[in-house]
Amino acid sequence: MKNLITMAVLSFCMTAAVSGAQPSDKDDQQIEKRIEKLVRKMTLEEKVSLLHGNSKFYVSEIKRLGIPEWSLSDGPHGVRAEINRHDWGYANWTTDSSTYFPTGTAFAAAWNPELAYYRGEVLGEEARWRKKDVLLGPGVNIIRSPLCGRNFEYMSEDPYLNSVLAVQYIQGLQSRDVACSVKHFALNNQETNRTTVEVECSERALREIYLPAFKAAVQEGGALTVMAAYNKYLGDWCAENKYLARDILRDEWGFKGVYVTDWGAAHSTVKSAIAGLDLEMGTNIENYDDWYFANPLIEAVKKGEIPESLVDEKVGNVLRVMIKTKVLDPKQRFNQGSINTSEHQQAAYQAAAEAIVLLKNKEDLLPLDVSSVKSIAVIGDNATRKHSNGGLSSEIKALYEITPLEAIRTKLGDRVKVNYAQGYEKLSTFIEGSNNGQNAGSFTDGNQLNEELLKEAVETARNSDVAIVIGGLNHDYDTESSDRQYMELPYEQVQLIQEVVKANPRTIVVIVAGSPVNMAALDICAPSILWAWYNGMEGGNALADAITGKVNPSGKMPFTTPVTLEQSPDVALGNFPGRDLKVKYEEDILVGYRWYDTKQLPVVYPFGYGLSYTDFSFAGLSTDKKSYGPDETVKATFTLTNTGKRDGAEVAQLYVSDPECSVMRPVKELKGFKKVFLKAGESKQVEIDIPVSSLAFYSEAQKQFVVEPGTFLLHLATSAHDIKADTSIEVR
Amino acid sequence: MKNLITMAVLSFCMTAAVSGAQPSDKDDQQIEKRIEKLVRKMTLEEKVSLLHGNSKFYVSEIKRLGIPEWSLSDGPHGVRAEINRHDWGYANWTTDSSTYFPTGTAFAAAWNPELAYYRGEVLGEEARWRKKDVLLGPGVNIIRSPLCGRNFEYMSEDPYLNSVLAVQYIQGLQSRDVACSVKHFALNNQETNRTTVEVECSERALREIYLPAFKAAVQEGGALTVMAAYNKYLGDWCAENKYLARDILRDEWGFKGVYVTDWGAAHSTVKSAIAGLDLEMGTNIENYDDWYFANPLIEAVKKGEIPESLVDEKVGNVLRVMIKTKVLDPKQRFNQGSINTSEHQQAAYQAAAEAIVLLKNKEDLLPLDVSSVKSIAVIGDNATRKHSNGGLSSEIKALYEITPLEAIRTKLGDRVKVNYAQGYEKLSTFIEGSNNGQNAGSFTDGNQLNEELLKEAVETARNSDVAIVIGGLNHDYDTESSDRQYMELPYEQVQLIQEVVKANPRTIVVIVAGSPVNMAALDICAPSILWAWYNGMEGGNALADAITGKVNPSGKMPFTTPVTLEQSPDVALGNFPGRDLKVKYEEDILVGYRWYDTKQLPVVYPFGYGLSYTDFSFAGLSTDKKSYGPDETVKATFTLTNTGKRDGAEVAQLYVSDPECSVMRPVKELKGFKKVFLKAGESKQVEIDIPVSSLAFYSEAQKQFVVEPGTFLLHLATSAHDIKADTSIEVR
Repeated sequence: MKNLITMAVLSFCMTAAVSGAQPSDKDDQQIEKRIEKLVRKMTLEEKVSLLHGNSKFYVSEIKRLGIPEWSLSDGPHGVRAEINRHDWGYANWTTDSSTYFPTGTAFAAAWNPELAYYRGEVLGEEARWRKKDVLLGPGVNIIRSPLCGRNFEYMSEDPYLNSVLAVQYIQGLQSRDVACSVKHFALNNQETNRTTVEVECSERALREIYLPAFKAAVQEGGALTVMAAYNKYLGDWCAENKYLARDILRDEWGFKGVYVTDWGAAHSTVKSAIAGLDLEMGTNIENYDDWYFANPLIEAVKKGEIPESLVDEKVGNVLRVMIKTKVLDPKQRFNQGSINTSEHQQAAYQAAAEAIVLLKNKEDLLPLDVSSVKSIAVIGDNATRKHSNGGLSSEIKALYEITPLEAIRTKLGDRVKVNYAQGYEKLSTFIEGSNNGQNAGSFTDGNQLNEELLKEAVETARNSDVAIVIGGLNHDYDTESSDRQYMELPYEQVQLIQEVVKANPRTIVVIVAGSPVNMAALDICAPSILWAWYNGMEGGNALADAITGKVNPSGKMPFTTPVTLEQSPDVALGNFPGRDLKVKYEEDILVGYRWYDTKQLPVVYPFGYGLSYTDFSFAGLSTDKKSYGPDETVKATFTLTNTGKRDGAEVAQLYVSDPECSVMRPVKELKGFKKVFLKAGESKQVEIDIPVSSLAFYSEAQKQFVVEPGTFLLHLATSAHDIKADTSIEVR
Repeated sequence: MKNLITMAVLSFCMTAAVSGAQPSDKDDQQIEKRIEKLVRKMTLEEKVSLLHGNSKFYVSEIKRLGIPEWSLSDGPHGVRAEINRHDWGYANWTTDSSTYFPTGTAFAAAWNPELAYYRGEVLGEEARWRKKDVLLGPGVNIIRSPLCGRNFEYMSEDPYLNSVLAVQYIQGLQSRDVACSVKHFALNNQETNRTTVEVECSERALREIYLPAFKAAVQEGGALTVMAAYNKYLGDWCAENKYLARDILRDEWGFKGVYVTDWGAAHSTVKSAIAGLDLEMGTNIENYDDWYFANPLIEAVKKGEIPESLVDEKVGNVLRVMIKTKVLDPKQRFNQGSINTSEHQQAAYQAAAEAIVLLKNKEDLLPLDVSSVKSIAVIGDNATRKHSNGGLSSEIKALYEITPLEAIRTKLGDRVKVNYAQGYEKLSTFIEGSNNGQNAGSFTDGNQLNEELLKEAVETARNSDVAIVIGGLNHDYDTESSDRQYMELPYEQVQLIQEVVKANPRTIVVIVAGSPVNMAALDICAPSILWAWYNGMEGGNALADAITGKVNPSGKMPFTTPVTLEQSPDVALGNFPGRDLKVKYEEDILVGYRWYDTKQLPVVYPFGYGLSYTDFSFAGLSTDKKSYGPDETVKATFTLTNTGKRDGAEVAQLYVSDPECSVMRPVKELKGFKKVFLKAGESKQVEIDIPVSSLAFYSEAQKQFVVEPGTFLLHLATSAHDIKADTSIEVR
């Protein structure tokens, strides 16, 4: 089944890639002429009307010029349900449910660029059906701290992995004539004080860690819009930050699309206009005419504070995105699109199946031999919790969402007794507030209740052949607008799992979470661990199939899970979430595994880590040459063999070290990877290409990326800790 | 599998029946002594504190006497989520989800007393776990009109079927020391003006049609509490209706439990007290001390308007229920109970599986041979809609609820392409209001949208091997507090289904509804029809299994579906929902099939109707004697054979006619039934017992039930229209 789907994905991608071919220069010239003509016909008022929202998610039409209302929507993992035009309530339509994909970190955990492209295509199809011109996302901010509330929407701690996936996602999405909005530009790595905090970050860390995915999105992905983050950098809010928005984004990277605020991220008229902001959305001022880019912008032009040509540039940017996505061609706009199709649901399933990470499988309890099992205890709140409707802006009104318990019951219930126990109460330990006396009745309180639930869970595990504990976090923790306070698992889950394992050593622990949690205690006590993410509408089915072996896990951790929060670089150096509205990225480029590697800190599960039900061996790592010029590409090849008895996939990871360099470099950095599907016993020759230019570091002295000649080490690995083979090259 | 489960159910029931044995007279004497002792110790204020709520669902404790707070909860098909103490908001606990059973009409459609007992047991188990002493239900009001909003919570149009199921449910529930509250007493057969309408009903119709299930609940089921309805009868609200509450309920039937108001159904102090009300709940007066049965009751005693002994009687009733359900025995109260167990979920599945009715199966499209099918179109809003959280007081926070689409995808998705199309928009035809312009964006309106959805559905059906349309109603229609306006299917579903069938003749129509809808047009166009109800948390799984043949449908319609609304007796005679706040039950005893039979009106699907994937034959109907005295019991026996190739169940129904009688009698009336499971080819000897007393009619002249001597005809049937054999008996 898996191979069949993968083939379907591939052929789908290839067709799409042809139709989504790059426009020629001639096309571009025609577009520019069309823009010029339109702008010339507009009054200043009309121009400005295109530069701010007329409601929560729309921009005004100009009927007489054939410019329709422009429609934007949230949704990096699904097109969000319709919001009321003038408030944040849901419109309660009955036709706005959609396909719900695994969220950001799950997306990254699949390490599959083809799936990323396909996901983009599906989202594009659904956005078109929902008549949305711009779909806000992907979120490519780096996972700097385990605690960031929005980690689950982002991808990984590595700029290369983020870049590859973002580019594919964007190309897939935009092939459907729906514009992406890469977010949040830039340095939006926490939710605490997100609208007021100023990030202090070295130029090198900015360039090496925080910007690469944005740059790739623009230059390789062709991203049509970029979203300004809420925070400040170099003293200025991102929406009015000339260094980010004009110097880097437009002048260095050649971005010609729309720079749009995050909702409510505009703070000025003239300053923003000069810095390069095009479109103001979500400002918290009741009368749309009073927004910064409405009447005040007209006034600023009239007073001569800014030239009208600057307004024309912005209008041009808006029109350019509109034209490229067929918004101005009524016959082509919205004449396509599809929603909630079997293919989309199958894509959600495949995305979920490939995201699941097998972290531990002592005694090969997994895959579960169902024929030998008569009863299964399913324990934990996340066995029944749906996550589609949580997390704020990434909420999805999923057409359906199959929970783990539902899938296990439906798939196995006729053969196996499925005994559910809640295990813990959602309102208990770390979140403020709990059942207050008035609501709780008179017979219990939270702690007593949790003791009861614990007892019940342990009994259930004891009386079942196998126990599956499905815990982790939920969108009370992994959410926009607030960060976590702890990296520990909440609700006393560790105690629960320890006691369940004691009662039944045949226990499988499943972590549903979008951010790092402290796994040290679980790794010690639990014999089998899967990480299952917020895994979309088919997440329950994928998990059930991974447990029974119908799916062979192939996901890899997109972030490190440290031994303690105190070893995480942001916390270790006292820089999360900052002080006095400033947060200093003192760890500099040593984010994620770059930090743990370099500081030689043990971790529970390293970046890139994930097991399989089969085994793989690597052989014959070599490069096409030994010595390369700065513009050449290293072609590394090796043979990968599935030496086990099940079909499966391995993610071959190529890390590079620069052992001698004029500046400090991390022990190693990911520069290439490939996900390879192999039937049992099959071997494949695999090639991973690494442009020599990607071996560069950012020289603050020279203000540019520099590759210093010398020896570079290549490490072929299955995680940041599991190096299978090494070789070296020379750069001239 | 089915047989296995049925066996498990049976053995469970038998164990339970033993432990729930009837108390001896000696026990009763001890209870009365204990009550007397307690009452003697109470002040008047303490007594009265037990006769009214101190919050939405609790009654005050009297600590010094060891009387704890008494806890009531909604829930005939699941223990309702916790409500705030002082308002109708949900308390948002995370430990109050529960098992969600098929709702009332689905419950009745299974025609299975053993399942009814088991359902009661499960609800009792869950109520105990949730620390509820009284679980409000079952609702046994007769389905008088197709339009009543609460039909889905009730059971059937037949008093005998309701009686049998209610008795078993109550015995099962109360075996777990949880009191039932049979509702709504009496004549609450519509929601329109429910708190103000006065029912005019003949004494005969009251006795023969509307009261039997209440009488059986009290006398055979041992119901511990009865709930007063909102409406009026004979000029008085039910809560202060002496004829209903004292003359009939207590004096005639010997009820010794608590007569409690529906929430907010109390209207007086002295009058209610004299009439026989015990407990006032849900009154819409802010200060609980100001309720009718609070300070005003104390005042009434002090002024001598009622004797304190009347208060003592009521307190005695409350204490009697408390003692019988172990409320006053701290060690026994709440020391049992379980929730969300595999057995409970399996019970919900079995209840759902046995409720599904196969209405039509032209060309044997069902059961679907999945191996010959590559793609299935699943069409309709009810394919994805969850119903547990609708319908007001019967809302359930289900631990999970598997929708039809989820089940079909999970069970078949790896072999078959499942193509979903919504088909129609929920907000469209008959409900007031639709997407208003402000929210809808500028590109569409409801009608255009429905055309688009229709077109998409037809395309999806055309491009699939088989189509399944899952339509019907939802809890916008089937709901407490309002009645429907039409019997037609809403949302232009008939057109949708007609066009889908045209596009793909291999179409299966599934009706999800709790009330009669007009099936005439569908019966003409659709080759295969299943009725799947609001079928609980496992409803999707049961439906998918019925479609593929893993479940062989055995449900029977608990109500008639007439050809037009105008032929329904309530509407035909212009008596729904009444005029000037009066509703005249002019059809008298001719409710449901009694009306259509007697008036010789064709119907689409008769009462008791339902097909199977196998065939049955009946032979050798005979009775143990030819002539019976008035206190004897007729033992009718016959051989039932499964002549087909699949295991299955038939509901053998025994109707009785009294062809010569001094008063008009219906053409026939249900007096006995038995659900019989037979393996393919198997035969069983079946006995159905009918007490001669049950052949009586209510004589208004003699003010009692009367059996007139003479010939009675027995009709062995598989529905009110399909009589398989006749015989006759003489009554002396």
